[in-house]
Amino acid sequence: MLFQVQMDVRLPHDMPAEQAESLKKTERERAQALMRNGQWRHLWRVAGRYANVSVFDVSGAEELHQILSTLPLFPFMQIEVTALCRHPSSIREDDR
Amino acid sequence: MLFQVQMDVRLPHDMPAEQAESLKKTERERAQALMRNGQWRHLWRVAGRYANVSVFDVSGAEELHQILSTLPLFPFMQIEVTALCRHPSSIREDDR
Amino acid sequence: MLFQVQMDVRLPHDMPAEQAESLKKTERERAQALMRNGQWRHLWRVAGRYANVSVFDVSGAEELHQILSTLPLFPFMQIEVTALCRHPSSIREDDR
Amino acid sequence: MLFQVQMDVRLPHDMPAEQAESLKKTERERAQALMRNGQWRHLWRVAGRYANVSVFDVSGAEELHQILSTLPLFPFMQIEVTALCRHPSSIREDDR
Amino acid sequence: MLFQVQMDVRLPHDMPAEQAESLKKTERERAQALMRNGQWRHLWRVAGRYANVSVFDVSGAEELHQILSTLPLFPFMQIEVTALCRHPSSIREDDR
Amino acid sequence: MLFQVQMDVRLPHDMPAEQAESLKKTERERAQALMRNGQWRHLWRVAGRYANVSVFDVSGAEELHQILSTLPLFPFMQIEVTALCRHPSSIREDDR
Amino acid sequence: MLFQVQMDVRLPHDMPAEQAESLKKTERERAQALMRNGQWRHLWRVAGRYANVSVFDVSGAEELHQILSTLPLFPFMQIEVTALCRHPSSIREDDR
Amino acid sequence: MLFQVQMDVRLPHDMPAEQAESLKKTERERAQALMRNGQWRHLWRVAGRYANVSVFDVSGAEELHQILSTLPLFPFMQIEVTALCRHPSSIREDDR
Amino acid sequence: MLFQVQMDVRLPHDMPAEQAESLKKTERERAQALMRNGQWRHLWRVAGRYANVSVFDVSGAEELHQILSTLPLFPFMQIEVTALCRHPSSIREDDR
Amino acid sequence: MLFQVQMDVRLPHDMPAEQAESLKKTERERAQALMRNGQWRHLWRVAGRYANVSVFDVSGAEELHQILSTLPLFPFMQIEVTALCRHPSSIREDDR
Repeated sequence: MLFQVQMDVRLPHDMPAEQAESLKKTERERAQALMRNGQWRHLWRVAGRYANVSVFDVSGAEELHQILSTLPLFPFMQIEVTALCRHPSSIREDDR
Repeated sequence: MLFQVQMDVRLPHDMPAEQAESLKKTERERAQALMRNGQWRHLWRVAGRYANVSVFDVSGAEELHQILSTLPLFPFMQIEVTALCRHPSSIREDDR
Repeated sequence: MLFQVQMDVRLPHDMPAEQAESLKKTERERAQALMRNGQWRHLWRVAGRYANVSVFDVSGAEELHQILSTLPLFPFMQIEVTALCRHPSSIREDDR
Repeated sequence: MLFQVQMDVRLPHDMPAEQAESLKKTERERAQALMRNGQWRHLWRVAGRYANVSVFDVSGAEELHQILSTLPLFPFMQIEVTALCRHPSSIREDDR
Repeated sequence: MLFQVQMDVRLPHDMPAEQAESLKKTERERAQALMRNGQWRHLWRVAGRYANVSVFDVSGAEELHQILSTLPLFPFMQIEVTALCRHPSSIREDDR
Repeated sequence: MLFQVQMDVRLPHDMPAEQAESLKKTERERAQALMRNGQWRHLWRVAGRYANVSVFDVSGAEELHQILSTLPLFPFMQIEVTALCRHPSSIREDDR
Repeated sequence: MLFQVQMDVRLPHDMPAEQAESLKKTERERAQALMRNGQWRHLWRVAGRYANVSVFDVSGAEELHQILSTLPLFPFMQIEVTALCRHPSSIREDDR
Repeated sequence: MLFQVQMDVRLPHDMPAEQAESLKKTERERAQALMRNGQWRHLWRVAGRYANVSVFDVSGAEELHQILSTLPLFPFMQIEVTALCRHPSSIREDDR
Repeated sequence: MLFQVQMDVRLPHDMPAEQAESLKKTERERAQALMRNGQWRHLWRVAGRYANVSVFDVSGAEELHQILSTLPLFPFMQIEVTALCRHPSSIREDDR
Repeated sequence: MLFQVQMDVRLPHDMPAEQAESLKKTERERAQALMRNGQWRHLWRVAGRYANVSVFDVSGAEELHQILSTLPLFPFMQIEVTALCRHPSSIREDDR
């Protein structure tokens, strides 16, 4: 099942640079692992903002929440979730 | 270049059923032609609403506008455009 | 899988009374059939508004959209969907 | 009488981890006691956010406020309350 | 139990004057009957707008909805309901 | 002249408990004095939130501002003011 | 007592031109009469919009509502009212 | 003096095609005349919407309003005006 | 040229009282100087809020920005600017 | 390709003055370099606010994001991006 997720990151201005770098590094590793196993299907940067638009392919809301809530940057993100389904006009096999 | 586009359709309640059907049929044919040639890369239905989330792969804003503004349902849609770019953490070749 | 759905109904002021009554009657029959088979798990009226708060128990977004988009009042409703999952503090067996 | 309540939790980034854990533990115990005695009838996690959707079954607004305002996380929550009533189409006995 | 209710009235511009007058007259009679029996406790006009702020004293959300949804102007009003309870600092006996 | 006033209180999380208690105590004494002399006519708690809905009976905006801006919690409140006037349908003598 | 009032006018697109002209002419005469007697103290056009920003000098909300609600364009205006009072830093005698 | 103006056009769905074409043609001629004489300095289409972003170079708000309020599409546009001034970091001579 | 300006002040809760007093005193002196020379034409307090509504009479946006951006409280204010022009119905000589 | 970008700057109140000055100085140098090479085509100050409206001329969203995300003030700015394209009515050669 597919979910569109938009994440806006807001790091506190007084977070030490090393802590921020460490968080981002762990976040990247986590994201790439999830992309490799197919759960984080798409990941795009929103131009001009510290934000991304993503599509997740998971078994349901439970699995989605388990993934999002354990991301290292989760406490610093504003997240919007939209449940998607196959569009009757789509001709692309994997847009389901 | 990639753009995320969200389209919400609002047909007037007094539009004759045949006109609505005809519009939707032409829209679908147009959408599928654009998907076949790669410009309309992704198309998903938003669950519970007469709306879709799409990703377009075009040469720029000019081509995007030419496509969207000539869709049969364009006069009846509220459209939001977000410019996307490659995310540094993405490992998917075509998420650019 | 559970979804919270809020539906706000707005009938056009010039809809003939019989048509409105007929729509509401069919909607009620449809809703009750869905409640009987367990897909429409909860249905409450929002006090003071022609609106409801509902919880659906479906296999996923696909089934939810199929249900909502074929409700007789669908063209006249503004709908908001929220994907739910089990809360770790819940002690109620069926709140999953 | 039923109220739908949505709670969004925002803990300050500089709250010590032990304090946060202690608050969450007390909150969970409190929530479960209220669920056991029937006042907190439903509790769901909103997928992707540190938030819940709940339904309370109380004698009125007085009792609801007494419960919510003494939750350990109350000072850190944004709360929205919606008064519900029985829907004429509902066939479920306890959706009142 | 007390509810604050704000009602904004929007009559369609093409409603015949007699129909509007008749609706307003019935609405006033209904409102005054409800004020006399104590259910519609306060009624104020919002300065500069076709809107009112009211306080209802009812047994619960069920009774409130029964009253509001049968007002003659209900189909033409946007309504917001806020559940109130006694304020610990109040010294006024009937502000409960 | 009557004004509806909604006050939402937001105390900083790092305010010492004694300071908060002291502020609330002074606020309560001030509110009760204003209720006794008739300027703060109604005071209700909004269910589920650290907020109140009030009605003030003052000579005009000048007196209202003098009252509100000297409340001990004023620096910590978000305040909305609505000018009220007598509703032509009201039968309650003092709803002016 | 002073009120700032912002009025946005939205005439229906199908209103006959003569009716619109007649309404505007009566509105202008009414406005000028109110300016001459001092109740409508200031009147400015918002650049680029069919809207105005005004300041009224009236005895209270009752008089303000009586004026605004009988303006010929009242049914076609969205109105926002802000109660003003003298600013302690003002040196202008009549800004009270 | 420079103003940024954003115009969103919403033609009624029941406007006859010839009327719409005629309006757009006159609008275009008017816009091009204003561009030629330097008052309408920049004009861009917003990608994916029937809207434009413009910059006007006029003597002040009076002249801006005279121009905008006499555009043929003015009754069908939602307009937002932002007053601009020279940015201290700008090195472009005519960005004043 | 006239601009309506609304300023909402938000001083940080941890600003020392002397610093706040000093800022306010300088702000007042600055405001009164600008009122004396006619640039700050009107200044009113918004009832119930630490905010003002003002009208400035300046040569253009450049002068307005120079004034506002050098106010002592500028870093602590949220400011909204609206360009005004003479209203065709105004009979007041200086409402231009 | 052109993008309209609006940037609102919000420096933390407790940032040392030298740090703020240093940031602004580097930002200005960076902006002027980008203006000189044509990527930052227009730059205007929004009257009355610490904000600017800009137009960028870049090869696409990738280049735009690379520019914006490396501005010294990027962590302190709220940014909105709008993709522009040539307007069919424009007569200005470089408004593409």
